[in-house]
Amino acid sequence: MRVILAAGTTETALIDGISAAGALPELLVHTPPADAEIVAYGEPTGAPVTPVSPTGCPTPAAITRAAREVVGFEWTVLDAGLAEPTAAPTVDLEAIPGNDVRESEAVPDAGAVFDRAYDFGASLPDEEVLIGETIPGGTTTALGVVTALGEPVGVSSSLPENPLEKKRAVVAEACEASDIEPGDCAGEPLEAIRHVGDPVQAAVAGVAAGALETGTSVRLAGGTQLVAVAALLRHADVDAPLELATTSFVAEDPTVDLEAAADRLDLEVLATDPGFERAEHVAMERYCVGEAKEGVAMGGALSLVPEGEMAAVRERLEAVCDRLGIDSEEGVPAPDGDGA
Amino acid sequence: MRVILAAGTTETALIDGISAAGALPELLVHTPPADAEIVAYGEPTGAPVTPVSPTGCPTPAAITRAAREVVGFEWTVLDAGLAEPTAAPTVDLEAIPGNDVRESEAVPDAGAVFDRAYDFGASLPDEEVLIGETIPGGTTTALGVVTALGEPVGVSSSLPENPLEKKRAVVAEACEASDIEPGDCAGEPLEAIRHVGDPVQAAVAGVAAGALETGTSVRLAGGTQLVAVAALLRHADVDAPLELATTSFVAEDPTVDLEAAADRLDLEVLATDPGFERAEHVAMERYCVGEAKEGVAMGGALSLVPEGEMAAVRERLEAVCDRLGIDSEEGVPAPDGDGA
Repeated sequence: MRVILAAGTTETALIDGISAAGALPELLVHTPPADAEIVAYGEPTGAPVTPVSPTGCPTPAAITRAAREVVGFEWTVLDAGLAEPTAAPTVDLEAIPGNDVRESEAVPDAGAVFDRAYDFGASLPDEEVLIGETIPGGTTTALGVVTALGEPVGVSSSLPENPLEKKRAVVAEACEASDIEPGDCAGEPLEAIRHVGDPVQAAVAGVAAGALETGTSVRLAGGTQLVAVAALLRHADVDAPLELATTSFVAEDPTVDLEAAADRLDLEVLATDPGFERAEHVAMERYCVGEAKEGVAMGGALSLVPEGEMAAVRERLEAVCDRLGIDSEEGVPAPDGDGA
Repeated sequence: MRVILAAGTTETALIDGISAAGALPELLVHTPPADAEIVAYGEPTGAPVTPVSPTGCPTPAAITRAAREVVGFEWTVLDAGLAEPTAAPTVDLEAIPGNDVRESEAVPDAGAVFDRAYDFGASLPDEEVLIGETIPGGTTTALGVVTALGEPVGVSSSLPENPLEKKRAVVAEACEASDIEPGDCAGEPLEAIRHVGDPVQAAVAGVAAGALETGTSVRLAGGTQLVAVAALLRHADVDAPLELATTSFVAEDPTVDLEAAADRLDLEVLATDPGFERAEHVAMERYCVGEAKEGVAMGGALSLVPEGEMAAVRERLEAVCDRLGIDSEEGVPAPDGDGA
């Protein structure tokens, strides 16, 4: 089984209070490169940061890696607008990093990125692929495109308290800057991305459309960002079956009505529970209280774990956390050297 | 286990009669991109050619892929001077394609490529890595560097009849153009590459040196091109243990004294026999008569196949050949549609 990760950036992530994907805003650009390396090599090898929150919650890449160590799936990363280099191997879609959605054009090259991704997806001989994302700020751009498409589906957050009001305000400002009203981009998904989306959406939608067109089944691997991609695909008249493989943390998020979104977009939802409450480890505890929730194809990777092997994934995750410098009880050391 | 492939090009390959890695010289630049795709996806997905000789002998990438389907090793491709794009994910070493060795500088950026490759190798957390190559014309540049270093080791060929006189004449011309005598670059491996080598040598030597420096064991996966890299490493004062994992086809090549080279360079040689004589398939027959022999980390990949599973590799190879359009009896159809 091949798991594909579209990795990119949007300056939207730099808006205060939007993203938990990295402790400091100026380090967020290194999160997608580090995520790609963690799944490829087991730890960051080139990126200068380790994406772990101050509370000791690791990037979902850690869980995807742990699942990969158990299942051994293929791992293919697309450079869908990275702003910093990664030492992980990538397929270059020649995407530029996304602008702040409050600018008039968020993704000037949305059409070109979609086309290149489409060709890549269409070229794959696989029977089935999973596609996920890593892009800080991605739930805000997700809210952007579903708003532009006129799809009333909610978005989740990597923060335990979803800053929904903040996101709505940003999206309202974004629509105004692009001179569009909610629903104006219905049936024009690339326009939605160009105005108020991010380059990773163009990449994921393109790969999915190309793969489906050539008979490859597609499992969207992620949370509400992937729901937004599903909406983009439906508005591109893609009517093939689509599966959403996400985590129980997204499915249980009270700020999201996943079932309603799935009905609306004809999505089969598969939510996998990694059983983190059974482990005594700060990293897993943070997921249980709603931090991070999903990303880096985590839900998709977990959906590949055979019955009875989830304990092995949790065990591998502890080893990955060790490599990322997370103590099972103390989390990450504070800058002064004390436990956090 | 991680298998790393350095993929690049040298214009040396365009010299008439040098390389079998592609039927027509102008298509040779597509061989490394296609090789990377075949191992990553099972067939060429972006490259416009399928590297199969007119006699029906597939690129060694087909065997590496077959072994990978059985063993499931990690696969990491380095762009070490590709002249055409590949749809396989790559780590970009920012190498430029190599010049014809008969120009005064064959690899102007040899030092920079080595340094980047070194950093990549040093960053890997793996306990052991295998490193191979795909670069048409590579045995000629191998002869170039061992000549410049003053190491009297021979080189093999992807052609059943090794055009050794031709290669020696090219290397003599190359040395003259660079104003060096045999042995002039002893102790200066990067100078040897710069004058008469290729960018893939700089990449493989760099990764190996960086990996060894940080405690990762290195298995050089290939034939005499990797012997040349071993010579480069020894001349860079790397004295760590080095293993050469090659095929029985190279070990049995009468134009090469592998044992003498191994003694000279303190190399442990492991030659794996895939038992192709047991299969009735034109692709395997071609290897048995000495075509192709090695490349794309084939010998290294075969060295990872557990006892008793080589029959499964041959079976998988038949399936790979099907996908590459090779008929088990007829080989490749001639351009007019007849069997070749």
